[in-house]
Amino acid sequence: MTVVVAVVIAAVVVVAALVVIVTHLVWYSYTSSFKFLIQVTKLSCALVCQSGCVLETLDSHVQDHGLTMPLDLGAKGSCHIGGNVATNAGGIRLLRYGSLHGSVLGLEAVLPDGEVMDCLTPLRKDNTGYDLKQLFIGSEGTLGIITKVSILCPQKPNAVCVALLGCETFQKVLDIFVSCKSYLGEIMSAFEFLDSESMELVKENLSLSSPLQQYPFYVLVECSGSNGDHDEQKLTNMLQAVMDSGAALDGTVATDSTKINNIWALRESCAAALLKDGYNYKYDVSLPLQHFYSLAEEMRERVKDHAIRTVAYGHVGDGNLHLNVTTAKYCPATMALIEPFIYDWVAQHRGSISAEHGLGLKKRQFIYHSKTPAAVALMASIKQAIDPRGIMNPYKVLPQAAKKE
Amino acid sequence: MTVVVAVVIAAVVVVAALVVIVTHLVWYSYTSSFKFLIQVTKLSCALVCQSGCVLETLDSHVQDHGLTMPLDLGAKGSCHIGGNVATNAGGIRLLRYGSLHGSVLGLEAVLPDGEVMDCLTPLRKDNTGYDLKQLFIGSEGTLGIITKVSILCPQKPNAVCVALLGCETFQKVLDIFVSCKSYLGEIMSAFEFLDSESMELVKENLSLSSPLQQYPFYVLVECSGSNGDHDEQKLTNMLQAVMDSGAALDGTVATDSTKINNIWALRESCAAALLKDGYNYKYDVSLPLQHFYSLAEEMRERVKDHAIRTVAYGHVGDGNLHLNVTTAKYCPATMALIEPFIYDWVAQHRGSISAEHGLGLKKRQFIYHSKTPAAVALMASIKQAIDPRGIMNPYKVLPQAAKKE
Repeated sequence: MTVVVAVVIAAVVVVAALVVIVTHLVWYSYTSSFKFLIQVTKLSCALVCQSGCVLETLDSHVQDHGLTMPLDLGAKGSCHIGGNVATNAGGIRLLRYGSLHGSVLGLEAVLPDGEVMDCLTPLRKDNTGYDLKQLFIGSEGTLGIITKVSILCPQKPNAVCVALLGCETFQKVLDIFVSCKSYLGEIMSAFEFLDSESMELVKENLSLSSPLQQYPFYVLVECSGSNGDHDEQKLTNMLQAVMDSGAALDGTVATDSTKINNIWALRESCAAALLKDGYNYKYDVSLPLQHFYSLAEEMRERVKDHAIRTVAYGHVGDGNLHLNVTTAKYCPATMALIEPFIYDWVAQHRGSISAEHGLGLKKRQFIYHSKTPAAVALMASIKQAIDPRGIMNPYKVLPQAAKKE
Repeated sequence: MTVVVAVVIAAVVVVAALVVIVTHLVWYSYTSSFKFLIQVTKLSCALVCQSGCVLETLDSHVQDHGLTMPLDLGAKGSCHIGGNVATNAGGIRLLRYGSLHGSVLGLEAVLPDGEVMDCLTPLRKDNTGYDLKQLFIGSEGTLGIITKVSILCPQKPNAVCVALLGCETFQKVLDIFVSCKSYLGEIMSAFEFLDSESMELVKENLSLSSPLQQYPFYVLVECSGSNGDHDEQKLTNMLQAVMDSGAALDGTVATDSTKINNIWALRESCAAALLKDGYNYKYDVSLPLQHFYSLAEEMRERVKDHAIRTVAYGHVGDGNLHLNVTTAKYCPATMALIEPFIYDWVAQHRGSISAEHGLGLKKRQFIYHSKTPAAVALMASIKQAIDPRGIMNPYKVLPQAAKKE
């Protein structure tokens, strides 16, 4: 009898211990992102946090204070804010809230000599000396390691609505962009485009469905504002104008979150859908808008016998084109058709060979396609001044030969 | 008779010559700012110009393209855009359009060794290497001379309206600020305050008149948007809310340009009105909003027997206080009461001793009140790397002893 009691007690203790451990683990994984958070000041709209916070977690957190993060991107569920700042991440809200060079108020970084550079101010204005934080934004970890950031968070919009439009030519996409700037003004929060190949891609590879029939180009416009009725009226006026002028051939508006999410999924799933084709040759370039889509057309013609598809989508509002070619597996002959042709083309049209993805290891030798030798030499002298031993993320960003005498 | 004819002909020739000369001079002065202008691209909202262009002239010019300059300040009629960028000028639109670190897309600068650094891109996104232009924004000419700039210009608002409110305490000013963010959201383009001493100052020294009775504090709120009816409705809703809550005791709204200009004159004439008192001890600090006005109260108490007046006004939305003490002529005893007290106070409250005016010659020794020794040492090493001979605007920004070993 005492043995049975002892076994029961032992079993209860083991189960209780397991419950405690599992509960602790679940709670830990749930709260682990929050423990990096330092402070949200609602009055001045400033978030101060450690660099290991996940973007989406931060967005949820600041939303509780009536704010929103000034950046949003497909990887928001896994990317860290420190990495966002170190790579000057762009994304879909840049059109509205500007780049991180404007939104980051301060940061703390550990320098190569171990010194901690504390510029973690939550102040909006501070003209006391050089704005050092700017150097670290987009330096891809080559000057120091960002450990904390302070970010200006805009007011959370009370209402969001989205329109998906179909049109005939890329020129019509630009015409719609001009109309949107005029009719939507301050409430426009995204202006994205997909070509028909992008739409086919997400339909075929991810079984998504479009609310519109097939058109050569699609425009996704998002509005976010403080008064939903006003915003819807502005969006309706814009739609009326672009349908009347013939710029758009069809369009649909979404105001409920399910339909909004379904429309956004068409645009945001492009990168995931590409992977299903096999190997991806991925390019992220900035171009003056008058040349924006010509690159995609030339590339499609160039690789037509070698590629599964050539798709183009991106942030028209920011002049940022995502151009992708896919093959079943990596093919040097296809690569030779794409590079350096694409970099030369972008340089000839005064674009940037890397709009938001940075240079890293692969593109650093192409830096001269977007920057002058004098500018690269100045970068090298700054790198030399801050990291003379070259220990911070070596072999990245600057080309091998870039050394200031 | 021939003498009379000769005199008449000579007079006609002289008058004609004078007319030609005067016309030429008027035309030259009218167009001299334009000849520095290089390009406005309406589609991408980018202005590219030489640094000698006057801000107000640029604003008029981009308005013809449906755009507006992202910055506005009292000195707009005489300040040059190159100086604005070199000093990271703030002003009254920063709340809406952000700082020049976000708006400046590119620049060209002549480096101390005579090399021209051409980073004059009109692209909105360009992540190819370090963002060098950022170093020159706010460096006060100590790293190089800015010769051309490229700036992102927001859409010109279709409508502007302004409200002037009177309230009892500075806490009520902050309550109104919270309401404005909620009700006005994306259309709020300025949130300024004046204390009663500032209002008395412009009334007494410049004979301006206020549309409101006397209150301890005044708030000036400006809205700019794409739809005037929507904006007015939002402003009316906000006014109703702050009057109902008791945050505001009185208020007036202006939608026509004359009344708008008269209200703005009250705020923008403060600096000119101060000069009529005699000597001005001028301070431009950033402070966390909860401490924002306490500094003015302490200062007023401190100098009460030595000053004509102590006035405080500024950009509440940006946490930027302009605090001024006046005496008939410069008085060392008064100065000793003000400095270093004010810098110590700001440092204790984690503010910035120079929000938008920079450090120049006078404030460079106080840099450690807002920046850590590690940050100042890093600034010095950057200065050393770019300008080893120290020839660019010497004795400015960095303190005398700041030399990286």
